[in-house]
Amino acid sequence: MKRETLLYASADSSADMLYFAKTFVPDAFFAFTRRGKKCALVHPLEIGRLRRESDFDECFDAAEISKKYFTLSDADTAAALFKSLKLSCFRVPADFPSLQLERLRSKGLDIEVASEPIFPSREVKSPEEARLVSRANAAAAACYKALADILAESKISSGRLVWRGAALTSQIAKYELEKVALSMDAEIKRTILACGDQACDPHCEGYGDIKPNSLIVADIFPRLKSSGYYGDMTRTFLKGRPNSAQERLVKTVLQAQKNAIRAVKAGVVASSVHGGVCSYFESKGYFTEFKDGAWGGFFHGTGHGVGLDIHEAPRLGLADNVLKENSVVTVEPGLYYRGLGGCRIEDCVLVCKDGAKKLSKYNYDWVIA
Amino acid sequence: MKRETLLYASADSSADMLYFAKTFVPDAFFAFTRRGKKCALVHPLEIGRLRRESDFDECFDAAEISKKYFTLSDADTAAALFKSLKLSCFRVPADFPSLQLERLRSKGLDIEVASEPIFPSREVKSPEEARLVSRANAAAAACYKALADILAESKISSGRLVWRGAALTSQIAKYELEKVALSMDAEIKRTILACGDQACDPHCEGYGDIKPNSLIVADIFPRLKSSGYYGDMTRTFLKGRPNSAQERLVKTVLQAQKNAIRAVKAGVVASSVHGGVCSYFESKGYFTEFKDGAWGGFFHGTGHGVGLDIHEAPRLGLADNVLKENSVVTVEPGLYYRGLGGCRIEDCVLVCKDGAKKLSKYNYDWVIA
Repeated sequence: MKRETLLYASADSSADMLYFAKTFVPDAFFAFTRRGKKCALVHPLEIGRLRRESDFDECFDAAEISKKYFTLSDADTAAALFKSLKLSCFRVPADFPSLQLERLRSKGLDIEVASEPIFPSREVKSPEEARLVSRANAAAAACYKALADILAESKISSGRLVWRGAALTSQIAKYELEKVALSMDAEIKRTILACGDQACDPHCEGYGDIKPNSLIVADIFPRLKSSGYYGDMTRTFLKGRPNSAQERLVKTVLQAQKNAIRAVKAGVVASSVHGGVCSYFESKGYFTEFKDGAWGGFFHGTGHGVGLDIHEAPRLGLADNVLKENSVVTVEPGLYYRGLGGCRIEDCVLVCKDGAKKLSKYNYDWVIA
Repeated sequence: MKRETLLYASADSSADMLYFAKTFVPDAFFAFTRRGKKCALVHPLEIGRLRRESDFDECFDAAEISKKYFTLSDADTAAALFKSLKLSCFRVPADFPSLQLERLRSKGLDIEVASEPIFPSREVKSPEEARLVSRANAAAAACYKALADILAESKISSGRLVWRGAALTSQIAKYELEKVALSMDAEIKRTILACGDQACDPHCEGYGDIKPNSLIVADIFPRLKSSGYYGDMTRTFLKGRPNSAQERLVKTVLQAQKNAIRAVKAGVVASSVHGGVCSYFESKGYFTEFKDGAWGGFFHGTGHGVGLDIHEAPRLGLADNVLKENSVVTVEPGLYYRGLGGCRIEDCVLVCKDGAKKLSKYNYDWVIA
């Protein structure tokens, strides 16, 4: 018997559900395939809109089925519907909620949990999807332009950056960038704007003064509000004058990123790209080690897929997955050393038959006088 | 043997994880209790920050445990850690991912899936949590002020609203409100700004022209960027002149909301509050029915809990749950009829021993000349 696909999630928080429904739905609901058709079991609150705006071929009204409006569990209602539709055999994604799994199984449904992506097609982007990632990256590029302007306008005064009469902090700069992104249909959550040692924790978002003569890592991953597609870019800046160690660090990361982008193409094994970055860093004397309770060097993957999720397939790290034509990956080598600071440079590329095509566009000028 | 609590989620998308970790973490990870202590198993990328900024007593480094950096599955690493810690008996939340459940069970771990909230304490808010919900609602109130100003500034011209030289659309107004919210540390995703029949699908976000002489439902639920707490308010506006049917509709919803807020206090059965709203509407001749493929009348709950999730315990609908002291609920009756439009009025209240205390503050003026 053919296994149908079954999801239970909010389309706001699950990229699989958004990919399947092609519209945002705030509350979790059941969606499933039925002989090639897309079906949803939804609350009356949603049914009118989903019938008009979503990709579902059939929308079933949970209230009509349960007849006990608001009081029957979602799983009970779904089990009743599946019985009437003569469906009993499903495959669910890895993040399918455990409680729904147990409840549906206790009703006699045969459910397999997928260990691989439930929609493998998400890894390969359509031209429209690649265009949406580019559009999200255009919002990031507008933010870099705004950030560079803010840094250029800032004055160094008694060892602090002063912008428009006040000390320039990560928070102030982020608020300015958020407004820029919003004007381009994008939201930027958890932007990283971290300077000095803050950037040595690559997920530290940064807070407090942005300091002169210090490396500033700005990692911006805008999500388009209309479609949910992400962009992902990182630039490293320095306001003031770099010292030679900072210069060498940035130069090395820039070159590593160029090399890695050059190494990306369809059919390449991801780990070979990542391994190339690691070797290059070591050849330049930048080693990765755990010291005094923290990692230093290059201790994250070279990249990851980007689409409806900010981190999705394929990985571009230690694993031996083969890069597929028309997948979209970030290429983002970085080096981090306490005392010196961090540098990461990141672009999104489309994996093509004979190379990589950048889906993000912003210059690499990093020293702002 | 005591069951420890086990979570696997991102703190950005799981309110339980955010509640437990007390900091945002973008990628999914394992977190668990161990004899009263909070523990996390995390990627080296996160460990430094979590040791400093989170609520975890112990952070285990996934790379150190797996020794095969990036190549061992999360569940394998967790199982190895649990073995070394002599932990084997867990309770996981309803939305625990099915794949992790199956993998951990296949390693011999005894895992129970909770059908009730894993952190029941989330339903009862501390004074600090209530303050954060109020703060989020202050951002919503600032948005209503801005929206009322925009509507007041708009001119009616040939049956359209014109604001600053262009037709006023939902999109334009939302962008203005988003900037206001951002300036108050809040993001407003999926704001509903729907006029006329659009509002009859209560989850339709609204698009296109905001029309004069038409009911405009504005449902704004800001989330504080710093802490993740939500506010949730709805106001209904009309730019121009209401007709008598619109006036009667709004007056009825306003009175129903007043009555419902008056009915809320600790110890009250939720369904009695909801039932009171239903009876009141019927007594005024407003009936709920499914007609021509869509619901009309009052076809959603009277309210829901608000905190780190926009919809959380307790419900304020048909179920017979008893409202607890210091829980926070919305009170949001609404009426929707195609042709006439919709009206919903919503505030957040703190459930107190002897009544309800509003955690949201904005006037109820709805006609804007």
